[in-house]
Amino acid sequence: MAAETLNSGDEMCLDEKAGIEIVRQIGKLLCRQNAGIAIAESCTGGLISHMITNVPGSSDYFLLSGVTYSNEAKINLLGVSPETIKRYGAVHEETAKEMARGVQRISGATYGLSTSGIAGPGGATYDKPVGTVCIGLATPKDVKGYCFNFAGNDRLTNKKIFAMKALDLLRTELLEKINSFACSAVLR
Amino acid sequence: MAAETLNSGDEMCLDEKAGIEIVRQIGKLLCRQNAGIAIAESCTGGLISHMITNVPGSSDYFLLSGVTYSNEAKINLLGVSPETIKRYGAVHEETAKEMARGVQRISGATYGLSTSGIAGPGGATYDKPVGTVCIGLATPKDVKGYCFNFAGNDRLTNKKIFAMKALDLLRTELLEKINSFACSAVLR
Repeated sequence: MAAETLNSGDEMCLDEKAGIEIVRQIGKLLCRQNAGIAIAESCTGGLISHMITNVPGSSDYFLLSGVTYSNEAKINLLGVSPETIKRYGAVHEETAKEMARGVQRISGATYGLSTSGIAGPGGATYDKPVGTVCIGLATPKDVKGYCFNFAGNDRLTNKKIFAMKALDLLRTELLEKINSFACSAVLR
Repeated sequence: MAAETLNSGDEMCLDEKAGIEIVRQIGKLLCRQNAGIAIAESCTGGLISHMITNVPGSSDYFLLSGVTYSNEAKINLLGVSPETIKRYGAVHEETAKEMARGVQRISGATYGLSTSGIAGPGGATYDKPVGTVCIGLATPKDVKGYCFNFAGNDRLTNKKIFAMKALDLLRTELLEKINSFACSAVLR
């Protein structure tokens, strides 16, 4: 294959090492709950799915991901309301919530996770600078939306930060679920 | 975010540097042809989409990706025939061709690219060892299927090799299209 060569073998670069731990933890937590996950990615472009599927056996809990880069893809594949995008824009916690709920629904997964943001260098608006990311998390009980801004990074670093933040929120949700089960067991 | 830290800044690890060149070339070739691309990934798990979207401006030609890890996702999202999977299995050039055609169709993209394979360490069968990858490439004229085996690598390296091979086949197709236009222009 032409001039491109890969750093073969078992050596992960630094960011891959940082990422593998969180996705291993998430995998174990999902297995404990007998739960599945589906992802709807926009600005992260497939990175979250790639990280999750780096774990052997992830097919036990990873059902599906859609990288819905365009508004049309968000609407047609995930069922995001055109009115939501028209009112709030693609990068908004309301849009992210609908993306998460949509991928949860079409996949039948227990949890849906989504990202929509601006990795840069272009794409910023007056109220949404480069580094803005909105994250949606659909659980069996509810749908949560978050919005953050991480300033001063290049495109690839932004994608990585967005992915890690989304995975961190998912891990927190899964841990809280486990802890609430434990508290219930103690109180009985 | 807990103990995970990222290697921030503009420093790509070796594999990211190897990958960015091919996806930049592909982006330029797609723009020259005013063409779009959609991806259906199984074993590569989102890596190809992540690589393509590392290029600023990739939303000009990247429409959609589906990471269809399960057979149900291949059938329900991409329209792969259950008979094809039953007859050939998920990891086969016929299945990869239907995945590529399916994502081309649902997205309206000019080209559809797909991967289905065995990154390991588990998943091998008697006739399909770890390192097997089947790749589908749907163009406006036809659908091509390929099957390769890359032995002796770990899961993450296999994902990277599979992704690079698929992108290399896409690049070759795009270059041949450009060259055939050039020959036609000369002959008139």
